[in-house]
Amino acid sequence: VTRLTEPDPGLTHVKLVVFDFDGVFTDNAVYVAQDGTESVRCWRGDGIGLDRLRRLGLELAVISTEVNPVVSARCAKLRLPCVQGSADKLAELQVLWERLGLGPDVTCYLGNDVNDAQALDAVAVPAVVADAHPEVVPLARLQTAAAGGHGAVRELCDRIASAIEADRDVRGEDVALAH
Amino acid sequence: VTRLTEPDPGLTHVKLVVFDFDGVFTDNAVYVAQDGTESVRCWRGDGIGLDRLRRLGLELAVISTEVNPVVSARCAKLRLPCVQGSADKLAELQVLWERLGLGPDVTCYLGNDVNDAQALDAVAVPAVVADAHPEVVPLARLQTAAAGGHGAVRELCDRIASAIEADRDVRGEDVALAH
Amino acid sequence: VTRLTEPDPGLTHVKLVVFDFDGVFTDNAVYVAQDGTESVRCWRGDGIGLDRLRRLGLELAVISTEVNPVVSARCAKLRLPCVQGSADKLAELQVLWERLGLGPDVTCYLGNDVNDAQALDAVAVPAVVADAHPEVVPLARLQTAAAGGHGAVRELCDRIASAIEADRDVRGEDVALAH
Amino acid sequence: VTRLTEPDPGLTHVKLVVFDFDGVFTDNAVYVAQDGTESVRCWRGDGIGLDRLRRLGLELAVISTEVNPVVSARCAKLRLPCVQGSADKLAELQVLWERLGLGPDVTCYLGNDVNDAQALDAVAVPAVVADAHPEVVPLARLQTAAAGGHGAVRELCDRIASAIEADRDVRGEDVALAH
Repeated sequence: VTRLTEPDPGLTHVKLVVFDFDGVFTDNAVYVAQDGTESVRCWRGDGIGLDRLRRLGLELAVISTEVNPVVSARCAKLRLPCVQGSADKLAELQVLWERLGLGPDVTCYLGNDVNDAQALDAVAVPAVVADAHPEVVPLARLQTAAAGGHGAVRELCDRIASAIEADRDVRGEDVALAH
Repeated sequence: VTRLTEPDPGLTHVKLVVFDFDGVFTDNAVYVAQDGTESVRCWRGDGIGLDRLRRLGLELAVISTEVNPVVSARCAKLRLPCVQGSADKLAELQVLWERLGLGPDVTCYLGNDVNDAQALDAVAVPAVVADAHPEVVPLARLQTAAAGGHGAVRELCDRIASAIEADRDVRGEDVALAH
Repeated sequence: VTRLTEPDPGLTHVKLVVFDFDGVFTDNAVYVAQDGTESVRCWRGDGIGLDRLRRLGLELAVISTEVNPVVSARCAKLRLPCVQGSADKLAELQVLWERLGLGPDVTCYLGNDVNDAQALDAVAVPAVVADAHPEVVPLARLQTAAAGGHGAVRELCDRIASAIEADRDVRGEDVALAH
Repeated sequence: VTRLTEPDPGLTHVKLVVFDFDGVFTDNAVYVAQDGTESVRCWRGDGIGLDRLRRLGLELAVISTEVNPVVSARCAKLRLPCVQGSADKLAELQVLWERLGLGPDVTCYLGNDVNDAQALDAVAVPAVVADAHPEVVPLARLQTAAAGGHGAVRELCDRIASAIEADRDVRGEDVALAH
């Protein structure tokens, strides 16, 4: 795993970024109230990064193992398509690729735990958060400096966007206006 | 207290893991709202570790001093049997041993504060979280690197599961599929 | 300010411990919901420390600048008498001393910010939390190693209780059973 | 960017302090409940700093990109005028200057992310929090040692107040009573 500090040519090919939810958009905590209702802690800065990738034309999606209204609520606010209750994340990725006409070679997946292992193994740019479970860190090509729920999503978006913008600039292509 | 980095033969005998709740499943904080209702902060990753021990056939239980709906809510979600309002945790352990036909020699107890002292003294594998009260740390044989509510439960489950799996592997026994 | 590591003879005279609320029982954060209702983050371990001082016969009280139902809720659970909406904490201390027949010479006050300055100046054992505002740290005789809402109350209670127990032991007096 | 440790003569001219909300009054987290309602984590100590600036006669305001009831709730409690849903913070600053008869030369702006860049560029005292996005740090003349939601607002208020008080003292002017 490399904490990339220079533009990575591999990132310029990314057309689809898929995220796990808990531990990626959140700090992997769940707040449980007396009536059993749950809350999660997300990061306000993630929206700016996701918008930046959208303006560059990338596809975005969330695949979550758990079925939970907090996932729906947060993804709706961030305007992210979201699959929940996924026991087999790789199968969901394949559905996604079919629907979008894209493949693993242009996909980046950001995860944090052992239930992300198959998805990480399947994509061109497997990425994990700074505080990922030790068993999945070796599966990643890229590890964010920020922890889940503390800017990891934003950091990955910023890196991919910067790489694509730099590449389009070199090629003289039109770069969508970034922030 | 040893922060074990190598497989511990003592862990291979564990058949029952008992957990305190506050400070173990949580970071020992309680969120108090204006109407007095409470919430606690738990760790999403704990469920994967508990499932791994269940697949290996281990018994799991929670014993909590306080009676609180947040404990019931969280334990229900994690499918953990749970005793609350326990002034005498050792007495609850004895009830548990009677019911399961198990004893202190195959029991691991994970605690964090002075009200866990008697339970820690009574079991073969007394364990405490990284941020346990200084008075109970010397009672433990094992201290997790992770703090309560930040992966301590998951870490203990992973250690015990890895020890049992490695031991069964050596003996040529069937190892239940781990994650 | 000394971070005391040895028993302090000054602590053995304490008969009354008074606490500020925000930044002492909490981490000085307030959680604000969309409807404006507030929550605060407290520390489960504080109750054990307060009970220990009660068993030794000490008086306990909370004086808070703000009027807030979360303060009432938390203090009710910890069975702590609580004065709220206090613009002049020193005046409240004097009311308290009058009522209890005690004085500044046997009082310890734990605070965290500039609105605690007068109270800190008035008592025999002025104490502040690890993350107190820099302006009040020089007013304290004792600073906890733990931050507010992360065990500061428990730590102060444990120190005072240990000092009193050690002193009574030396004098051959009956020491109330500590935890 | 300088982390100022000595009085800064530039701060003595400040007559208006404008704050971003998320990541400045908060730690940039948002707590999302199952029903989609949101909460944010603010800092109790900020109120004392804002009151100190008010007593010195300064104008205060909040400009937030997002429209959110939590912003209204917190600003109402802190008695801060607040503009929400601002896509163009610089335009809002200009409205504010017009209304107050003040200009950029006497304005301090505290922000944390790229959507604060234009506002930071426009004022005499651009300031960012300790954990600001790396892209905006170079735009600031002052960076707080405290992170957003962990005392950054209080720290900026204390610095400006101390500078103005010291300056008025030198000039023999009446200094409004500070805390």
